[in-house]
Amino acid sequence: MELNFITILDLLGTFAFAISGIRMSSGKQMDWFGAYIMGLVTAIGGGTTRDLLLGVTPFWMEDGSYFLTTGAALLATLIFKNRIFRWGNALFIFDSVGLGLFTVVGISKSLAAGLPVWVCIVMGTITGSVGGVVRDVLLNEVPLLFRKDIYALACVAGGLVYFVCYHFNMPPSFQELIAALTVIVIRIIALKFHIHLPILKSGAEDTT
Amino acid sequence: MELNFITILDLLGTFAFAISGIRMSSGKQMDWFGAYIMGLVTAIGGGTTRDLLLGVTPFWMEDGSYFLTTGAALLATLIFKNRIFRWGNALFIFDSVGLGLFTVVGISKSLAAGLPVWVCIVMGTITGSVGGVVRDVLLNEVPLLFRKDIYALACVAGGLVYFVCYHFNMPPSFQELIAALTVIVIRIIALKFHIHLPILKSGAEDTT
Amino acid sequence: MELNFITILDLLGTFAFAISGIRMSSGKQMDWFGAYIMGLVTAIGGGTTRDLLLGVTPFWMEDGSYFLTTGAALLATLIFKNRIFRWGNALFIFDSVGLGLFTVVGISKSLAAGLPVWVCIVMGTITGSVGGVVRDVLLNEVPLLFRKDIYALACVAGGLVYFVCYHFNMPPSFQELIAALTVIVIRIIALKFHIHLPILKSGAEDTT
Repeated sequence: MELNFITILDLLGTFAFAISGIRMSSGKQMDWFGAYIMGLVTAIGGGTTRDLLLGVTPFWMEDGSYFLTTGAALLATLIFKNRIFRWGNALFIFDSVGLGLFTVVGISKSLAAGLPVWVCIVMGTITGSVGGVVRDVLLNEVPLLFRKDIYALACVAGGLVYFVCYHFNMPPSFQELIAALTVIVIRIIALKFHIHLPILKSGAEDTT
Repeated sequence: MELNFITILDLLGTFAFAISGIRMSSGKQMDWFGAYIMGLVTAIGGGTTRDLLLGVTPFWMEDGSYFLTTGAALLATLIFKNRIFRWGNALFIFDSVGLGLFTVVGISKSLAAGLPVWVCIVMGTITGSVGGVVRDVLLNEVPLLFRKDIYALACVAGGLVYFVCYHFNMPPSFQELIAALTVIVIRIIALKFHIHLPILKSGAEDTT
Repeated sequence: MELNFITILDLLGTFAFAISGIRMSSGKQMDWFGAYIMGLVTAIGGGTTRDLLLGVTPFWMEDGSYFLTTGAALLATLIFKNRIFRWGNALFIFDSVGLGLFTVVGISKSLAAGLPVWVCIVMGTITGSVGGVVRDVLLNEVPLLFRKDIYALACVAGGLVYFVCYHFNMPPSFQELIAALTVIVIRIIALKFHIHLPILKSGAEDTT
């Protein structure tokens, strides 16, 4: 594994998402191994979906570092538990950071595969958000993605920023950083100021 | 995108399923973008699963019209909301129409890929029903597929009709129309007259 | 289909998992066809996921016996219902046997595909456990995998035993049998003596 900028973002995002998955498992009667798997699917779910859609070998099969990073996240949770968990917005912050980093990784890989811009943005959004959706489905909850202020839309915004930077030939590391920050900042601002799109109301009583 | 009969069925099915996904999202505290994604996964979930199983590039990556059609479905929901939602059986009708159309699209594509008849019927059933299953799982409900009167079985029946027509060398558009109508009519009749297969009862108390 | 040892394990595992899926559907207002599909996804979910990850044609598309075996499981359930269901630990035993057999099948296929040992063990675990996870998600429950005593960890242990046997050049049928028994015995012992890994506690109140 080459240690370029994308790789570092990728491992940071893995760690962040693994922590988010493990944290949401806590207090749900899961043992350490169950929590590890929850962290793992949260961390690799999006990228695996992306790779299946692209028809390439899932990234983690060629590189053990994602499984090791998730192990490190579990270890960190076990050792620094109180500190990690007491940090009030931990789940939210980790989720946002993972979202931003993975979105960028997904866009970069799709761009390298020669896909059109709009598909790259969709792939970035999938890479960023599907892991969290799988986590929530496994925990038997309606995914955060659908319940919370700006989420997947932040990925789309990050993707647009990515391609604006790309259009102006900015250095790759720079455009990746800017795009990831866009996602993270949009999510944080949206939460802090309770910004969200209009809610879809039902026009009549639901008769399902 | 060539505008042949299958394509038109495909976009109609997409619209129908997207409406069904968006409608079920309403009144669940989802914003417009969340509802759009719900419509999208309902609409493209089945075909994407089919394409992954067939090992081909997911259809929507090569043609933006499915994303646009879902956008049109959201727009239609926002504009005609009261009319669409008050129409009592809207969800059911849209779900049935999507089911019928997608089943036929799935069978035709699998047949073109040279698969044996029984696999084509399975692929048609998957194309028709998986989108709704994903929708229900994301909304944290036991899928309609398992709860309701004749559902996936209607797809199988439609598939059998398809191959009877195929056997007698009927014109493709005709066999596609007949098969789709079979699925739709079976579902509507089953609901109207409460026809269903026997329920599987538990022989003893569940001790799970 | 060649009737070697792996094939027999595969069909036995299919039957066991199908029974487990069908049994968990009973008493949930599902009809026979819904129960059949539940049995089917439980039985082929893990292997299908494995094949998608490996980038090969899903095993059941090339061989109808998995669909037939699931049909036999449904028939057996309908005929011997009381006996199958009254057998108190039926669900657990069937689940464990399926887990053990599928783990071994998954490892053997991945090894034949030339994957590194650790990926083979992951693939074995996926083959063994994903079907049950899909079953639980469709039934709208937090997967057994995460709730119960040693589960996926038993697959990993079975995988390690497999490669120890492999290392000592034991006959394939023997190493497959030993590995499957390891998984099954570990699960049964873990349940009987309530052995489990430490539970991950939350360090603070969950503020999700």
